[in-house]
Amino acid sequence: MKVQGKDYRTIWLNQNNDEIINIIDQRYLPHKFIIEELHTVRQVFSAIKDMQVRGAGLIGVTAGYGMYLATIEAAHKNHFEDHLNQSATMLKSARPTAVNLEWAVNRQLQAISKENSITDKIRIAKDTSIIVADENADHCRKIGAHGVTLIEQISRKKNEETVNILTHCNAGWLAFVDYGSATAPIYEAFERKINIHVWVDETRPRNQGAGLTAWEFINHGIPHTVITDNAGGHLMQHGLVDMVITGADRVTRTGDAANKIGTYLKALAAYDNRLPFYIALPSSTFDWKIRNGVRDICIEERNADEVKYVYGLCENEIKKVLVTPPASPILNYGFDVTPARLITGLITERGICKPNEQDILSMFPENK
Amino acid sequence: MKVQGKDYRTIWLNQNNDEIINIIDQRYLPHKFIIEELHTVRQVFSAIKDMQVRGAGLIGVTAGYGMYLATIEAAHKNHFEDHLNQSATMLKSARPTAVNLEWAVNRQLQAISKENSITDKIRIAKDTSIIVADENADHCRKIGAHGVTLIEQISRKKNEETVNILTHCNAGWLAFVDYGSATAPIYEAFERKINIHVWVDETRPRNQGAGLTAWEFINHGIPHTVITDNAGGHLMQHGLVDMVITGADRVTRTGDAANKIGTYLKALAAYDNRLPFYIALPSSTFDWKIRNGVRDICIEERNADEVKYVYGLCENEIKKVLVTPPASPILNYGFDVTPARLITGLITERGICKPNEQDILSMFPENK
Repeated sequence: MKVQGKDYRTIWLNQNNDEIINIIDQRYLPHKFIIEELHTVRQVFSAIKDMQVRGAGLIGVTAGYGMYLATIEAAHKNHFEDHLNQSATMLKSARPTAVNLEWAVNRQLQAISKENSITDKIRIAKDTSIIVADENADHCRKIGAHGVTLIEQISRKKNEETVNILTHCNAGWLAFVDYGSATAPIYEAFERKINIHVWVDETRPRNQGAGLTAWEFINHGIPHTVITDNAGGHLMQHGLVDMVITGADRVTRTGDAANKIGTYLKALAAYDNRLPFYIALPSSTFDWKIRNGVRDICIEERNADEVKYVYGLCENEIKKVLVTPPASPILNYGFDVTPARLITGLITERGICKPNEQDILSMFPENK
Repeated sequence: MKVQGKDYRTIWLNQNNDEIINIIDQRYLPHKFIIEELHTVRQVFSAIKDMQVRGAGLIGVTAGYGMYLATIEAAHKNHFEDHLNQSATMLKSARPTAVNLEWAVNRQLQAISKENSITDKIRIAKDTSIIVADENADHCRKIGAHGVTLIEQISRKKNEETVNILTHCNAGWLAFVDYGSATAPIYEAFERKINIHVWVDETRPRNQGAGLTAWEFINHGIPHTVITDNAGGHLMQHGLVDMVITGADRVTRTGDAANKIGTYLKALAAYDNRLPFYIALPSSTFDWKIRNGVRDICIEERNADEVKYVYGLCENEIKKVLVTPPASPILNYGFDVTPARLITGLITERGICKPNEQDILSMFPENK
């Protein structure tokens, strides 16, 4: 999508040296637009772990590129397979909740294992990393095409008055390769000149809404308003929200959805106010192995400092301020699980389905 | 309550000059403990408006003291009544949501109107301001005595394992004169050596949970953990919360409760997880005139900068950091309304009642 009028993806192979991966370092947004180079698997691991890149989709794609670098590194070692597997294990361990990470690494391992020569293994790893990235962008584009029909319906019902959409965290193009999941229908609606306005939850502790989603929208011209995470319920009670769309980090085969902490609270409010609540996700976000999301999805506990300190721009530098007493204990879960019963539908690259095992599997029969 | 081992109230008449009001300037907490002097009605107005003092109870008490200063100021003017009424109007306009503000000013006006001489008017205004403050502390103490029985019940059920209480914002002693409303049962449980632990919502945008409630608990030794406003639902889903107690800024005669923005979301989560959700309030917080809280309670829209910037300690100074793109629009409602249907009970100075008109009026029959 557009940054200062120029089209970007979130990750790409360096034009001059295709053994280098370029990323937008998202830790500096919305204040500074910085492009970084990743040269080694360890740098890829750190980029995921330290959230230079983040978002379910982009984490997977980045790990895919990481596995390509892993084949190059392994080629210089005595035991190619051992080294490759070590890299795979390391990359998978970078973040625990997003299923896409494991999925992308495993897809690479499978593709690489089918080739015999090391040259071919490197070639297929490179090709696969590009395919995974392109697929990711393509799935998001399709999510947009399906999801926009929901926005169009509301727009028609409201006689083309503004459709107010609430979103939590950043499931925007910055969380994928392009378009985003939750934002894809929004960008598509904007293209089609539907009157829309987006309520952007700031999304503490890391403020990915205030910092990333709002930055995307400023750059692309999408009408939006930033609100605190506390505000959505009040807006819904007063008719100021028409629908909610969020992304997801892991969705069970029964439709329970793990997403950024606080999503569950917005789903409850939407349900209480009889408003549609949609989860937008590429199918790589499904975890086909589990049925009970609240019980079985492992929720990442992150560093206390994310709550204790808030980062932002101060005197033209990015600084952090302490917001709690220094001695107060902190607990910082990264995600929560919204039970399927609170979700109106899942917007996927194949279409929109109800969040239950039967409907999900009719859309993805290969996972029956 | 205790600050660094010494007992304090939030507001008191200066020991050396009883025409000066002392307050704890809450804008610098938890980082700096600063006591300010208020000499004029305008300073009292600013102290309320700029949130040097805040919290439903303390706002009322401060306005009460402000009306005492108003009689002193009016005594130097030609038209005592006119000046007094102007001060009353100004003080009432400082914050729109808390009913206690209007209540305290009207109580002073009534008391002052019953005296004839200006000397007597000043004397009664001073006495009334002290009575209002003492009553406030006394009501909170009684809320603690009633509310602690709920904590004791849970403690017994759990065989004296830790009772986990979640609270939102600061309805602590800093929001009143002493003890607090939501925190009064907590302080009382602590006195009675019941095992308790409190989840403290940070409470964006102004972080009164992270900054004030956590500071109270650090100073008083109450076991607690600060969490983001997004986290409570997840904790409830996983059995980590036994009950919720919050304060309120205005409660209808039918039990709908306006409180800090985001309270409604926690009430929904408590309801969804079958957990008790209590509102603690002195009776001065009731608005006996209205029945439909969501429709009829005026919700204050506050400055966008509260969302855009986060204040905290940076390099030993209090600084603010920008967390959104500079151009992103912001909307900042200060409160939301939790419908009575989501509230388990109201803890008042007279006892605990169900949130419905009949039960509330049996406890406060003078408002029938």
